[in-house]
Amino acid sequence: MTDITRKPAGRASGRSSSRSGGRAARVAARAAALAEDQRPIQPGMTGGLYRPLSDAQMQRIHETALTALAEIGLADAPPSGIEAMVAAGATLGDDGRLRYSRALVEDTLAKACKEVTLYSRDGQHDLNLSGQRVHYGTAGAAVHMVDLDGRNYRDSTLQDLHDASKISNTLDNIHFVQRPMVARDITDNLEMDLNTIYACCSGTTKHIGTSFSDPSHVARGLEMLNMIAGGEDKYRARPFVSNSNCFVVPPMKFATESCEAMEHCIRGGMPVLLLSACMAGATAPSTIAGAIAQTVAECLAGLVYVNAVQPGHPAIFGTWPFGLDLRTGAMSVGSGEQALLTAGSAQMHQFYGLPGGAAAGASDSKLPDMQAGWEQMCSNVMAGLSGLNMVYEAAGMHASLLGFCHESLILGDDLIGQAQRCVRGIEVDDDTLALDQMREVCLGGPGHYLGTDATLGRMQKDHVYPSLGDRTSPKEWEEKDKPDLLANAVARKVAILAQPSEARFAPDLDAALRAQFKIHL
Amino acid sequence: MTDITRKPAGRASGRSSSRSGGRAARVAARAAALAEDQRPIQPGMTGGLYRPLSDAQMQRIHETALTALAEIGLADAPPSGIEAMVAAGATLGDDGRLRYSRALVEDTLAKACKEVTLYSRDGQHDLNLSGQRVHYGTAGAAVHMVDLDGRNYRDSTLQDLHDASKISNTLDNIHFVQRPMVARDITDNLEMDLNTIYACCSGTTKHIGTSFSDPSHVARGLEMLNMIAGGEDKYRARPFVSNSNCFVVPPMKFATESCEAMEHCIRGGMPVLLLSACMAGATAPSTIAGAIAQTVAECLAGLVYVNAVQPGHPAIFGTWPFGLDLRTGAMSVGSGEQALLTAGSAQMHQFYGLPGGAAAGASDSKLPDMQAGWEQMCSNVMAGLSGLNMVYEAAGMHASLLGFCHESLILGDDLIGQAQRCVRGIEVDDDTLALDQMREVCLGGPGHYLGTDATLGRMQKDHVYPSLGDRTSPKEWEEKDKPDLLANAVARKVAILAQPSEARFAPDLDAALRAQFKIHL
Repeated sequence: MTDITRKPAGRASGRSSSRSGGRAARVAARAAALAEDQRPIQPGMTGGLYRPLSDAQMQRIHETALTALAEIGLADAPPSGIEAMVAAGATLGDDGRLRYSRALVEDTLAKACKEVTLYSRDGQHDLNLSGQRVHYGTAGAAVHMVDLDGRNYRDSTLQDLHDASKISNTLDNIHFVQRPMVARDITDNLEMDLNTIYACCSGTTKHIGTSFSDPSHVARGLEMLNMIAGGEDKYRARPFVSNSNCFVVPPMKFATESCEAMEHCIRGGMPVLLLSACMAGATAPSTIAGAIAQTVAECLAGLVYVNAVQPGHPAIFGTWPFGLDLRTGAMSVGSGEQALLTAGSAQMHQFYGLPGGAAAGASDSKLPDMQAGWEQMCSNVMAGLSGLNMVYEAAGMHASLLGFCHESLILGDDLIGQAQRCVRGIEVDDDTLALDQMREVCLGGPGHYLGTDATLGRMQKDHVYPSLGDRTSPKEWEEKDKPDLLANAVARKVAILAQPSEARFAPDLDAALRAQFKIHL
Repeated sequence: MTDITRKPAGRASGRSSSRSGGRAARVAARAAALAEDQRPIQPGMTGGLYRPLSDAQMQRIHETALTALAEIGLADAPPSGIEAMVAAGATLGDDGRLRYSRALVEDTLAKACKEVTLYSRDGQHDLNLSGQRVHYGTAGAAVHMVDLDGRNYRDSTLQDLHDASKISNTLDNIHFVQRPMVARDITDNLEMDLNTIYACCSGTTKHIGTSFSDPSHVARGLEMLNMIAGGEDKYRARPFVSNSNCFVVPPMKFATESCEAMEHCIRGGMPVLLLSACMAGATAPSTIAGAIAQTVAECLAGLVYVNAVQPGHPAIFGTWPFGLDLRTGAMSVGSGEQALLTAGSAQMHQFYGLPGGAAAGASDSKLPDMQAGWEQMCSNVMAGLSGLNMVYEAAGMHASLLGFCHESLILGDDLIGQAQRCVRGIEVDDDTLALDQMREVCLGGPGHYLGTDATLGRMQKDHVYPSLGDRTSPKEWEEKDKPDLLANAVARKVAILAQPSEARFAPDLDAALRAQFKIHL
């Protein structure tokens, strides 16, 4: 048996040299920083290999949603929405509910925007929402901050919000920043909305999601955004802030004021997130299929609405069914049921060919502890594997969306990195199958793969290394005085916040904004 | 529009009565304990909706493994193994390596055991390994115990092992107990192997996996097992302990002594786990596809071996590729790469129609912290979704398999419960789509689903509630003095260990065992 002779002669020296290199060669290889596009994980990688619903099941959910829209319909649309939707073909019943025929829904699906770009202010972090491309980011809206020191919950502030934005700007695996918390120290709602935009935009150049608490605030918000962009035409060309619209009060009622705000946003050129946040067992059926069917129906109604106001306007299909602990009636976001609600939603977005988003990665735990880790990973990785375009609430969120934690956001970057590695999946080709390497290593070779050219060549581009996650041996760990994950996250936070924001406004723009708006930062 | 009249008259009163029930009705519903088979999650639920490999990719991995077996083959088989495998059709080369033709592998696959039952001692926890049925349990072998008090790593002992078995016996979502740690306080290896069996069997009636450190120990081990069973015929009829055989030293070498031990186990009627534990980047190619291809080749060789000794003997296809941190050369088990290695392995088991197992749920973290939570969930849920029959290392394992933690095992039960809920998936039928409920609730109904008959009827059988995981609001949490997850796990451990073992031997059997063997417990 002379299989060993099959080995090309040229390879022997390569192996020999890298063998003699060993650890030094690995050190040299990892010292060479990778270009951005060579990183092992990227925003917008394609998921979709996990399919909790069969084609027939998706069809049944779709049919249920169509029946619900035709027979139950939605109540409480504002007069302007009724006018637009009736003009588009919806029927207003004596009971005040708008009902939608199959034909109207199908026409809407045909004309709806199928590919949404969520722009970044710097042009470096634009997100392309299409197919099964996956992006992770924060979302709202917590009303508390979690201070690890003393394990305290306190009211969240504008500074907390700015800090979250600034921290997110430094984290590779946080791809967008939807405002994660409410600035409760600002009592005037208009000022709160405007300062929310200021605090987020001055913290990150990544895409931002915001929200308006009143329709009348949108005009001033757009004014600020147009100033930041350098003119309305520039903002409209690359809207780097989108609006999150809780346009329904499930089950099957429009949120009147939010709908009015949405109309203003559409007219101002803002992409909108059609957010239907139901709770399975309270504001939607307790079953996963039923909750998805209802939220799909609601978002289809929202899509009719958007396209009635402005055909083809960029809208994200935001089916956000949440879980509920039926023992207590309290919201629960960290369960396996939640992960299924979200992954099933992602498949329905793909069923329609629409850019979509849902919530994953939030925890019921009050602190970034082991429970938080398993809850955040469960839904985050399943959302990614299911090919969800926008994974909202992916980092930092605790207490069933009531509390946000900066240190958890930082750790979430590590967690999401591993989830993204899973989304990237398994490459199978001659190189990765590595039969030649097996031959070389086993037949007269070193008997191990450490330091082979193939191993060294792939050590940076195949593997996601944690930033704060610890992989030391117990011995090294003890020698380092048993480093604590949370203490390290606190230190990272302090270091990030000690630096000036990379997204801060130029002095003249900042002065102009402060002259026009009452900025509380 | 009179859709409201579609509602069957009979339902209105039902809704009305459950509405008036509210919280009291929920309390009553959850007070009624569910029968075992009504629990929302079960051992052996069917996964497989996550498929990281396409059919063509599996075929390529298979072809690569076949080529590796034909051209590279395996070294270091013991004389008895060479004799058996050559008799079965393998070729012994001048280089001492056994090589396997495609025909031999195909013949072996045809005659191999396709459905393995792993028996429990009590008959209540038998595991059926077939199809994409998923079971979670512990595995080995840590050499340290993690004491949360003082965050200390210390040598693991026989008592620790017994305690782990006893704790596992009380946890619904730990389906089997492969010995998770080494009893380092027993210096004699034969005594260690025998006491390992005693400590595990006296702690749990669930299926146990053990391991022998020397071929000569198997006979005495079987003697003990036959005594516990009440006779050799009884043990052979329901072998409640299987043997974990690290039968290869990757890459592509048999572990000579372990193979000899395996032969003894086969002859004694013990099911075997054909365990190929390679490290991608050290003892296997660094690529996921390459590591899977090599471990598949090794396990196919092992399968030839088992079936050459005893055709159709129950064997678990144990492709256990582990990850490696290429920066340091240290083993890493908590990464996204690990989850993919395991999920891809599961698909290869299904490709061959063989009962299989792999490792998931272990952490690189030294403690049960947030990192441990995300690492354990990532691979556990992906293993389940991929339909892995035996998820080994699923709970309690830290420091890249060097440390075991009882409190983490207890928390792992919660974690695995949520993973299992994901495996159960989404049911889609008329009941779960709940269109009738939507009509009732929305059209003149209460406008919410809390307390409907459907919601109450499903609150126990659809939902997995955590045992220690906390879902309180920040307010409740503060009122309860901010309960700590780990402190609660410690308390649970103390309570479990304060009770006598439910699996303890009858006094006469125990006395007989102690007369025959030197028991250190």
